[in-house]
Amino acid sequence: MDGIGAHEVIIDTPLHSLDLSDLPTAALAEVLRMIGDRVRALEAEGWSAYVQVFKNKGEASGASIVHPHTQIVATPLIPGQVRDEIRAAERAFKRDHRCLFCRLIEEETSADERLVRRSDRFAAIAPFASRFPYEVHILPLLHAPNFSSLNGGEGIDLADMLRAILGRMKAAFSDPPYNLVLHQGARPDFSATRGILLPGVFHWHLEIFPVLTRAAGFEWGTGLFINPVPPEAAARFLRGEQELVQAEI
Amino acid sequence: MDGIGAHEVIIDTPLHSLDLSDLPTAALAEVLRMIGDRVRALEAEGWSAYVQVFKNKGEASGASIVHPHTQIVATPLIPGQVRDEIRAAERAFKRDHRCLFCRLIEEETSADERLVRRSDRFAAIAPFASRFPYEVHILPLLHAPNFSSLNGGEGIDLADMLRAILGRMKAAFSDPPYNLVLHQGARPDFSATRGILLPGVFHWHLEIFPVLTRAAGFEWGTGLFINPVPPEAAARFLRGEQELVQAEI
Repeated sequence: MDGIGAHEVIIDTPLHSLDLSDLPTAALAEVLRMIGDRVRALEAEGWSAYVQVFKNKGEASGASIVHPHTQIVATPLIPGQVRDEIRAAERAFKRDHRCLFCRLIEEETSADERLVRRSDRFAAIAPFASRFPYEVHILPLLHAPNFSSLNGGEGIDLADMLRAILGRMKAAFSDPPYNLVLHQGARPDFSATRGILLPGVFHWHLEIFPVLTRAAGFEWGTGLFINPVPPEAAARFLRGEQELVQAEI
Repeated sequence: MDGIGAHEVIIDTPLHSLDLSDLPTAALAEVLRMIGDRVRALEAEGWSAYVQVFKNKGEASGASIVHPHTQIVATPLIPGQVRDEIRAAERAFKRDHRCLFCRLIEEETSADERLVRRSDRFAAIAPFASRFPYEVHILPLLHAPNFSSLNGGEGIDLADMLRAILGRMKAAFSDPPYNLVLHQGARPDFSATRGILLPGVFHWHLEIFPVLTRAAGFEWGTGLFINPVPPEAAARFLRGEQELVQAEI
């Protein structure tokens, strides 16, 4: 492995005390466009295997900078956890001849128990095996392995959805610390050339969770997560249909 | 999978404000004996696949009880992360015809760069791929897959070592929150009967880390950990040979 990598910090707004959810839709869409531009630029350099986008807000989320910002890290390897996710998507595709995430969107929309929000282009879901209380995943309805394919119209739509979900969390949990994490496929050319992963099988999505509990000895020892809030209750709450379910254990 | 499990809380001491490192060696050895007794009792019930022992101290470690305590959780499955570790030990054994951890102890003792402490029966090592600043692993010198084999003499020896390491951390980091996590093989009978894992290939050990940094978006997204303190510096510091290395990023 080459000793190479990249780390970029995107300043979300010049205003020090704002959160993403405080930005007008157009300004938030511009942040998403900037992220897409930088991801594409890093991928075009050709040396990376994976590009990780994430946001840490508030001290308990692990943030070391207070000013609103988003980070991009490009790595020369596919992180083991990402590889496991891609492999699981591959196995599902080989079994079902369709995308695991496309199927998830369809089933969750139909069941309508864990669906938080849906627009013309995106679905927000409280995943059935949520690790964290009020965890939400946002997925594009149209299958796309990588975030870099996001276009302007999708950016506006995603900005609207992020504003709604982060705004609800901000109001409900008194401006909580949170993490926002992109999960996507390997860099497209990397997948295609190595032949070790089925290119295009992954379906990018954002994972968002307010930091209300902490990983403790059990989680570190097993990789299993104790979550006291059922995702169905989290979805009802985030849709505004139910009062808060206590997240303390 | 059966919907079955067990969760026990061991009160380490009647004194509310003490840490394990404040206990006399004999009292700490008694806590270890109690843990061993309860692990054996749970294993004897015959339904579990894995027994997880852990300790959360301080709010940032995830502790929800202030009084000094240790927890035991028995699960009807081998957690995925534990299975990955056991599989890695199996692969190493098949390749080298010896235990990965026995070899690690030998090599780390010989190199003497990351060795924190060594007694007649245990070695404490700052692992070369530490996830957390000042992470320490304590391993029995004599190969043993499961904690339940700990005998009285070993218990006294382990108590002495724990007192020294936790005491050093307590003094250095002003009584920090920490996690202590047992890693061990599957329940012995479970391994033997299922035939899916090479019984006896694992080598139990304790993992200890003060909570000085937090998992953030990058860690949650990739499973990779950013650790600003090299294990060699951590080992020197914990041996008392070097001043503190700043753990902030």
